[in-house]
Amino acid sequence: MIAGVIGAAGYAGAETVRLLSGHPEIDALILASVSFEGERIEHIYPNFLGKISAALVKPEDAAAGADVVFAALPHGVGEPYARTALERGIPFIDLSADYRFDDDEAVFTAWYGKPYMFPELRKWSVYGLPELNRDRIRKLGLGKKVIIGNPGCYPTGASLGAFPALAKGLAGPGTIIVDSASGVTGGGREPSRSFHYPECADSTAPYKVGCHRHTPEINRNFAAMSASGAGASGPAVIFTPHLVPMNRGILSTIYIPLTGSWQSTGGTSGAAVRPPSKEIEEKKGEIRDLYADFYRDEPFVRVLPPGFIAATNRVRFSNFCDISVHLDPGGTTLIVVSALDNMIKGAAGQAVQNMNIIFGFNEAAGLQAVPASF
Amino acid sequence: MIAGVIGAAGYAGAETVRLLSGHPEIDALILASVSFEGERIEHIYPNFLGKISAALVKPEDAAAGADVVFAALPHGVGEPYARTALERGIPFIDLSADYRFDDDEAVFTAWYGKPYMFPELRKWSVYGLPELNRDRIRKLGLGKKVIIGNPGCYPTGASLGAFPALAKGLAGPGTIIVDSASGVTGGGREPSRSFHYPECADSTAPYKVGCHRHTPEINRNFAAMSASGAGASGPAVIFTPHLVPMNRGILSTIYIPLTGSWQSTGGTSGAAVRPPSKEIEEKKGEIRDLYADFYRDEPFVRVLPPGFIAATNRVRFSNFCDISVHLDPGGTTLIVVSALDNMIKGAAGQAVQNMNIIFGFNEAAGLQAVPASF
Amino acid sequence: MIAGVIGAAGYAGAETVRLLSGHPEIDALILASVSFEGERIEHIYPNFLGKISAALVKPEDAAAGADVVFAALPHGVGEPYARTALERGIPFIDLSADYRFDDDEAVFTAWYGKPYMFPELRKWSVYGLPELNRDRIRKLGLGKKVIIGNPGCYPTGASLGAFPALAKGLAGPGTIIVDSASGVTGGGREPSRSFHYPECADSTAPYKVGCHRHTPEINRNFAAMSASGAGASGPAVIFTPHLVPMNRGILSTIYIPLTGSWQSTGGTSGAAVRPPSKEIEEKKGEIRDLYADFYRDEPFVRVLPPGFIAATNRVRFSNFCDISVHLDPGGTTLIVVSALDNMIKGAAGQAVQNMNIIFGFNEAAGLQAVPASF
Amino acid sequence: MIAGVIGAAGYAGAETVRLLSGHPEIDALILASVSFEGERIEHIYPNFLGKISAALVKPEDAAAGADVVFAALPHGVGEPYARTALERGIPFIDLSADYRFDDDEAVFTAWYGKPYMFPELRKWSVYGLPELNRDRIRKLGLGKKVIIGNPGCYPTGASLGAFPALAKGLAGPGTIIVDSASGVTGGGREPSRSFHYPECADSTAPYKVGCHRHTPEINRNFAAMSASGAGASGPAVIFTPHLVPMNRGILSTIYIPLTGSWQSTGGTSGAAVRPPSKEIEEKKGEIRDLYADFYRDEPFVRVLPPGFIAATNRVRFSNFCDISVHLDPGGTTLIVVSALDNMIKGAAGQAVQNMNIIFGFNEAAGLQAVPASF
Repeated sequence: MIAGVIGAAGYAGAETVRLLSGHPEIDALILASVSFEGERIEHIYPNFLGKISAALVKPEDAAAGADVVFAALPHGVGEPYARTALERGIPFIDLSADYRFDDDEAVFTAWYGKPYMFPELRKWSVYGLPELNRDRIRKLGLGKKVIIGNPGCYPTGASLGAFPALAKGLAGPGTIIVDSASGVTGGGREPSRSFHYPECADSTAPYKVGCHRHTPEINRNFAAMSASGAGASGPAVIFTPHLVPMNRGILSTIYIPLTGSWQSTGGTSGAAVRPPSKEIEEKKGEIRDLYADFYRDEPFVRVLPPGFIAATNRVRFSNFCDISVHLDPGGTTLIVVSALDNMIKGAAGQAVQNMNIIFGFNEAAGLQAVPASF
Repeated sequence: MIAGVIGAAGYAGAETVRLLSGHPEIDALILASVSFEGERIEHIYPNFLGKISAALVKPEDAAAGADVVFAALPHGVGEPYARTALERGIPFIDLSADYRFDDDEAVFTAWYGKPYMFPELRKWSVYGLPELNRDRIRKLGLGKKVIIGNPGCYPTGASLGAFPALAKGLAGPGTIIVDSASGVTGGGREPSRSFHYPECADSTAPYKVGCHRHTPEINRNFAAMSASGAGASGPAVIFTPHLVPMNRGILSTIYIPLTGSWQSTGGTSGAAVRPPSKEIEEKKGEIRDLYADFYRDEPFVRVLPPGFIAATNRVRFSNFCDISVHLDPGGTTLIVVSALDNMIKGAAGQAVQNMNIIFGFNEAAGLQAVPASF
Repeated sequence: MIAGVIGAAGYAGAETVRLLSGHPEIDALILASVSFEGERIEHIYPNFLGKISAALVKPEDAAAGADVVFAALPHGVGEPYARTALERGIPFIDLSADYRFDDDEAVFTAWYGKPYMFPELRKWSVYGLPELNRDRIRKLGLGKKVIIGNPGCYPTGASLGAFPALAKGLAGPGTIIVDSASGVTGGGREPSRSFHYPECADSTAPYKVGCHRHTPEINRNFAAMSASGAGASGPAVIFTPHLVPMNRGILSTIYIPLTGSWQSTGGTSGAAVRPPSKEIEEKKGEIRDLYADFYRDEPFVRVLPPGFIAATNRVRFSNFCDISVHLDPGGTTLIVVSALDNMIKGAAGQAVQNMNIIFGFNEAAGLQAVPASF
Repeated sequence: MIAGVIGAAGYAGAETVRLLSGHPEIDALILASVSFEGERIEHIYPNFLGKISAALVKPEDAAAGADVVFAALPHGVGEPYARTALERGIPFIDLSADYRFDDDEAVFTAWYGKPYMFPELRKWSVYGLPELNRDRIRKLGLGKKVIIGNPGCYPTGASLGAFPALAKGLAGPGTIIVDSASGVTGGGREPSRSFHYPECADSTAPYKVGCHRHTPEINRNFAAMSASGAGASGPAVIFTPHLVPMNRGILSTIYIPLTGSWQSTGGTSGAAVRPPSKEIEEKKGEIRDLYADFYRDEPFVRVLPPGFIAATNRVRFSNFCDISVHLDPGGTTLIVVSALDNMIKGAAGQAVQNMNIIFGFNEAAGLQAVPASF
């Protein structure tokens, strides 16, 4: 099978190329780039020397010649190639935000500042978070005429961390807070002051506080997973991203107010707060077990054993999302920590996972790397 | 004037030494250490070569010979030296948690696992957060017979970020969440697996989720600053620390539910969330002005101008705490970001600031360094 | 086939485990540890959760039950297990320095401070640098009764960088200088002050200048590769290691004085030095081609194309050693840069490569990972 | 006294501003920028908020209104402002390469690709390395009509490391190798791919091997310091810069072949190399003492005590250059390590030091900061 990658010169594209090069079902790659057409991928990424060698072609050529097309382009740029793929009846897996909101163009326009170019394409698209939409992905993918809106990196970590609590009715009426930290590869390959080494090394900095584009995607996912009784709009969610000096990884600390029946007695708070009581520890264990059960069959979600806390260095270079479950000493707020590699489960790995689902491959094909912790 | 520093070989101690060495009112230093007695400070910290030179003496000798004593020791170890200082009528500035809870020994014992050695010392002690207790510090310090409980690093950043909202009645009845990230110097000089370079480099990791010792200190400070009507126990606070790969700095992102009258109309949330409206931006500006006004006369708190977000690399090596004010798109939650250098405003700098207040020096003496941003 | 790993809890051991877990010829692992016997490997390295699961057994049990044994132990500790393996007729691949000097016990003793425990084992041992000793490894390995002295990380990078110049007679009579920088994983998993995050982050520091233990290994390798006419002692080599704030990688910059016939005319030096002339560039190209030719059939050495300079981030997580060839403006000194991942080609990967050679597997089996550059 | 800083928005300029803001003899600053004219310095560098506040003016205005002018501009751009300063009879301290080669325009042109704009300015210029040219700087500065060619960062570290050996005749006839590592601030404030965080974090990479512009400056300095008998062109020097993931600092490891009389007997080398003998250690001590003596009166050079090795984290944020002296086991090559903060002694601090010399201030005025080691 031949895979095409459009936008192969960018970080998400290059990571897709790296993963596909080791995929047992992929025989050849067609790599394309808008800005670097004609250059060789192994000269842009010398790490590929001796392993992957190709001249970057025009995006059209990738869309025309492959059996599946991945696109890692800026938002709003790849629609013509998606249309070509649809017409050819091959899957188009899009890593931009273009297909993350299905036919809800108003949301896309409000946050991304442009309308859909070909709104009708959304008839064939599905939001590609397997843990939410695996059945839809599979069903739509049967005919291969399908567009995947591959999820954003932050929404993936936030969603996987909150889903069990939302699905099982643990979340009470209050606001859910998602406080996240990202590695710098999340900003892509183009140099800019924000990602200039001396500006971000040895420092921690929030950005786009209260106005990051992943906010509506997280909110939508939470609403989708919540029990239907929760109302059309879903729970209120606040999301704050931070830039931390690491290459890869997203760590999300998620604060979910528990509904009354899930709250623990024996909690303490305010000036009288005390270390977690036995009741708190027990309730925490109970919720952890519920999380573990929820994800029992998921190949890429690891609910950590008691005593472990999710951290980004445990999932590096893997498609895993690690989750640990905690409780505040008051027993009223569930604290979930999720960790993933923003370039893999947060981008390229999830894209390959979606391809695997569509084609009926082993869902973990090409994604078996054991993470290294150092 | 002669300053003594007990625990000079540790990070907080060495930083106190460095700051005092440039203090215009300090003529000489007596440096002491329990574990490194007899060694030379400039051999332990070769950065001091040619600038600071001293053999480390016994703690007793520092307490006996100085006009002011700083102690940067593990919790529960320094009480005998504090007693000596009290007897000699000289200020004792303690960087451990021993005097942070005044006579509330129950809190200390519950979280630090030991009782007070000499409970009666608390008659002379005061919690040394100048922005909360300047008048008490000054008054108690008049007779020089005073013990300062120098604040914890996290509580300093959390408190300064929340104080205006608490004092001015902006905070509503819900839980306040403090999500913080610390540089690795916060763990001190002793090697351990958690702070082993390959274990924490290039990674972000929460720790002690729901059970960190700074939790009661933050809660107590919030209660103390809240309007008296808030009830004895103060607002519920949840605190989560994270370790990030940087040397210095604490970044706190603080989520404060607004009371009804301070909430903004024109907010959006849930699946219908939209970018911040004009009303949100205006309300944000209003609250920022209130913050700026609250800290107008503080020498070391900078409420950032509109458009700026606090980050740790802007306060490096200074005694500043930077604060930026934000609002969620729903208009119901105030998001405050505070940044400080954990070794300076979070430890040694604040200790020197307390000395300055006690002795009637310019409060910024020895703390005038302009931060470098790279 | 069953592989045993003794010292699996250390960094080199854990990396060996990670590589073997994906090796197509390995069916099962027996993991052993002296210090952590009884603990589970996936609790020590939570990155392994869901992928590798085993209780650590006694070293004896690994030596007794496996078809090949890897040992990643401190120097001088693993000899009894090597003897057991020999007796059982299975290969023993040792990552310590115990078998790097063959029967030259005097060198080992002088630099490592202890004698051989069982000197007679060296009858069966071979220094496991495939690019130097592939034939000997293969021949000795035929009967499976073989001990591999897996090379040190620095000597691997230094040797691969200098070999072509030494073998082809480019090196003149002067001293060869090897200036190397290592990531912090090279110091192993045990915490110590040198590798405490705040002591090595954001800094560069040489160590053991003029007295590092890898010095005799580099010298011996250079002598072995030099034309026989070079004399028994080989060229004089100076080696300086530096610690730099990165997790993985060794970068060696190697200065080789060229013999007269290889020097370029048209060079400039001293106060009259000018940018490289055309002659210099041509000579550089000539030598690069010679290097490329020398390594033509090596699966893991990449001589970079003109215009590229070796860097550690291009070989991360791979078994590659990248080499780039340069010339000083004077045309008298060859400057070679080599880069490898100290945990892979510098330790665990090379060990697996040696196993592959011994057993006649594809030499790259289990070592096919494409390096990621970010 | 009023100081002007042209190019204040760049890293070297901003660091000059930071140092001058704390200088006891400077009453006011005029800050200028070509690219950011009209912007406020404290908005470009929010670390300055509350400490330094100024709108950036045109370069002409700084040159016209100040008592001393610093210029941190790209090479070849600042000559008109230098001329203005000369005409006004005020010192012009230039941080570019424009005046580092005095009237040797051919060198400048060969390496920097352009001719001098106003060659006649060199009549008034002097290379501003105080440890080499203090007397000339003082003498030329007497009339205030003087231009300082502030040294490059690498040449400062290389020169200070080699000067005693060159001046005292220790260096033999062979090539001196300078192998250096720099922090990323050395690349300046403008974003580019080389300094994009994910491209340089967690990696070590040489660059411009055999062709870096600081090569002729180092060669010239070595020739200038060498005994006159060494010949016009001075010793041959090879210089290789490396980029390492740290913000500040330059570490240079310098290999100097010893002349016969300074070589140690009792050395070992080649395959017979052994740990340093007693003779080697003694010779090392002797040379160290000679270095210490050479720099006895220098305020900013610290020759480290026996047992210490220079490292960049010991000089951070200070004007110190640390030097440690070592010997190879063969006793034929002196290995000197020098460390400095590239933004201070390597740029802004040295510029301020030059101002102090010219104006007869205490040479350490404004440069008294004690380095912090973490």
